[in-house]
Amino acid sequence: MAPRYDTISFLSDYGHDDEFVGVVRSVIRAIAPEVAVVDVTHQVPPHDIRAGALALARSAQYLCPGVVLAVVDPGVGGERRAVAVEVGDGASVLVGPDNGLLAPAVALVGGAGRAVELTDLAFQLEAPGPTFAGRDVFAPVAAHLCAGTRLEALGPEIDPAGLLPAVLPISHIDDEGLLVAEVLWVDRYGNAQLNVDPDEVAAFGDRMGLRIGDDRRTARRARSYGDIAPGEIGLVIDSYGLLSVAVDRHSAAERLGLHAGSGVLIERFSQDQEAPAAGVVTPVQLSSRPSAPDEEVGP
Amino acid sequence: MAPRYDTISFLSDYGHDDEFVGVVRSVIRAIAPEVAVVDVTHQVPPHDIRAGALALARSAQYLCPGVVLAVVDPGVGGERRAVAVEVGDGASVLVGPDNGLLAPAVALVGGAGRAVELTDLAFQLEAPGPTFAGRDVFAPVAAHLCAGTRLEALGPEIDPAGLLPAVLPISHIDDEGLLVAEVLWVDRYGNAQLNVDPDEVAAFGDRMGLRIGDDRRTARRARSYGDIAPGEIGLVIDSYGLLSVAVDRHSAAERLGLHAGSGVLIERFSQDQEAPAAGVVTPVQLSSRPSAPDEEVGP
Amino acid sequence: MAPRYDTISFLSDYGHDDEFVGVVRSVIRAIAPEVAVVDVTHQVPPHDIRAGALALARSAQYLCPGVVLAVVDPGVGGERRAVAVEVGDGASVLVGPDNGLLAPAVALVGGAGRAVELTDLAFQLEAPGPTFAGRDVFAPVAAHLCAGTRLEALGPEIDPAGLLPAVLPISHIDDEGLLVAEVLWVDRYGNAQLNVDPDEVAAFGDRMGLRIGDDRRTARRARSYGDIAPGEIGLVIDSYGLLSVAVDRHSAAERLGLHAGSGVLIERFSQDQEAPAAGVVTPVQLSSRPSAPDEEVGP
Repeated sequence: MAPRYDTISFLSDYGHDDEFVGVVRSVIRAIAPEVAVVDVTHQVPPHDIRAGALALARSAQYLCPGVVLAVVDPGVGGERRAVAVEVGDGASVLVGPDNGLLAPAVALVGGAGRAVELTDLAFQLEAPGPTFAGRDVFAPVAAHLCAGTRLEALGPEIDPAGLLPAVLPISHIDDEGLLVAEVLWVDRYGNAQLNVDPDEVAAFGDRMGLRIGDDRRTARRARSYGDIAPGEIGLVIDSYGLLSVAVDRHSAAERLGLHAGSGVLIERFSQDQEAPAAGVVTPVQLSSRPSAPDEEVGP
Repeated sequence: MAPRYDTISFLSDYGHDDEFVGVVRSVIRAIAPEVAVVDVTHQVPPHDIRAGALALARSAQYLCPGVVLAVVDPGVGGERRAVAVEVGDGASVLVGPDNGLLAPAVALVGGAGRAVELTDLAFQLEAPGPTFAGRDVFAPVAAHLCAGTRLEALGPEIDPAGLLPAVLPISHIDDEGLLVAEVLWVDRYGNAQLNVDPDEVAAFGDRMGLRIGDDRRTARRARSYGDIAPGEIGLVIDSYGLLSVAVDRHSAAERLGLHAGSGVLIERFSQDQEAPAAGVVTPVQLSSRPSAPDEEVGP
Repeated sequence: MAPRYDTISFLSDYGHDDEFVGVVRSVIRAIAPEVAVVDVTHQVPPHDIRAGALALARSAQYLCPGVVLAVVDPGVGGERRAVAVEVGDGASVLVGPDNGLLAPAVALVGGAGRAVELTDLAFQLEAPGPTFAGRDVFAPVAAHLCAGTRLEALGPEIDPAGLLPAVLPISHIDDEGLLVAEVLWVDRYGNAQLNVDPDEVAAFGDRMGLRIGDDRRTARRARSYGDIAPGEIGLVIDSYGLLSVAVDRHSAAERLGLHAGSGVLIERFSQDQEAPAAGVVTPVQLSSRPSAPDEEVGP
């Protein structure tokens, strides 16, 4: 018996303004009516492969075994390959363009097993034009996989080591001892997730400095969003286990001018600097930069 | 046999930009694959408990029996309790934070039966951080309830009378005889639902005055949106049985500067005032306030 | 046995900010719990019948056999009829207002068979007000059709020839030999679909002129979006087989000031005019209009 899957987890940059998601779901249902389609999100910014790859990676460990259909595909109709990639010894298959979108999720769940390029037109729809591969290539392939089609029937096997990797920023300590971090994601509430594991700042104590462009702020480790006082900047371990910049019931991203890709330097305070309690500011800090006194810190 | 439910009606402020809804659905499906999840709405404004409570109340009588999963949860990770509340002798269970979000819906369907605080971690997910209770607490509990887990297994029983009530505005007649009302909700089309039962204005006749801030307008009772003439302000009995301010195929909220929470005074015209037909304006009105002549009314 | 359907494809202008879609789905599920509801799109601009009709037409050939529930209904509660229209010898039934919304899709799938006006209240919900026909009329009718209710039970048969047609623009060649076209749709990526079959410009060669208001541009036929060079304007055969104006990974609509309904004149170049390669501009062009030199073309 060929493997069969009963769930397709579907992520794209199609948005909801147009009928793209509905048409893809209809195509799937026509081929594999018993399959449940779970929408991961379709509001990845148009053509933003990195944002899609990160959303997929954040979701990966929670998705049901089955087929993952992921389409953020600015190169549609061009040279990029369409692929299907097995993970977990075939427990799941990721289907999408070979442009880095799938890579972080594949890595997170243990790396790629077999992979094929989707070239066999028997498992695809005839298309008036080459621009809607989600409908014409990826959706029918995902549905056929659920209905029992074997991976190797979809096209020639390719070396999974040759799949395009994603380029994600890694945090590091610079020559001055600052932790060089980057905003991975700003969520709906305006929390800014950093590429920082809490362990990396475990020795920084409860309060630390944030440098965002020319701004210097003091942030405090907080247990939850509700634990952050009005006016304060909190660093919370978010629901994915990463450090996230947050403020009290408002958008930290808006208040601090952060967006996905923004650089953030995290500074460990010396013993002297660490001393001031929240809201108390040393003279040196005040004199060097008088605005927003309770959040500033001297160099 | 424990009660089992086959539908989860799901409302939140998660939006669709992120993968929150998809992850919650995946968590549910992993625990209770046969359950249908019906999205009520996920576009409640972030952290807006009142808006979420009203949307849930408007929907309540139409939702299928089963579990209602409702998450608008600014206090996540803090002191607020996570609860499950039976209604209708156990025909349905509402699962969510105890912050007033559930209260109007519970009241509408006959009040709370048993209630428990969700403390037993065996029915929850281990979480890297405390900030995504929808995924880690509420969704698994909702799914386990569907799969047959009994309410009392989820945590200690609590007094339903101790659940946080919602504070919703009640319309009333003031000393001057004006009906003091408030906008509960502005819908996608810009119609502004008031907290006014049509009975309250039954004696006001066909035409009445609206005072919105310093503006004074004349509104006419209309059978439907299409019954409102261009330039006219209509008062329609909306699909929930409440009085709603509408204009002809445009947004009444935008035209009149209304939003959820706006105060509106409704004025009963005297016999003399009631006389003018639509579009006809008395000299007194014109002289007292010359703009928008066909909608004005003198004091 | 009465015909039964297992899929409802659902399109509306309800948006996702309110609970309208969720309530309609709940109503359907209460009547016909086994039916799958596929959302085509709910982000048709409010009251925009033409946009809804075009989205439905674009989707039509991909939708599963069954019931199509389509609601863009500015005349709700007024004189417009509520109808159900069979197509494909009863393979599918379209349910919605008789305001032109259904017409293009009906035409595309072979025209209307039987049609009825939805007057029998036994298959509808009692409503507090007449403004939410999706919930109170169309959804219950759609669900009852799935559950086995026969078309003729829903109300009196009407002449399908009397259904309101849609008015869609047809491209044509004007006296000067220009192809007079119109933008049908701007998608999420900013591609502007024209009402032009590629055959209509087959003899125009690889490059042709676009007149948009006072602007004159040169566009090039491109195989895919990725085939369009930076700064270039491409004409791509889109996923529905129509000509679409696109630019390199940006919004063509934004760059060229196009929206649904914009007029576009397409000009065939003479042999001399066709000569210049992309980026090369003739003196005549430069002198007649100096801005954006590599996209201009003289009269």
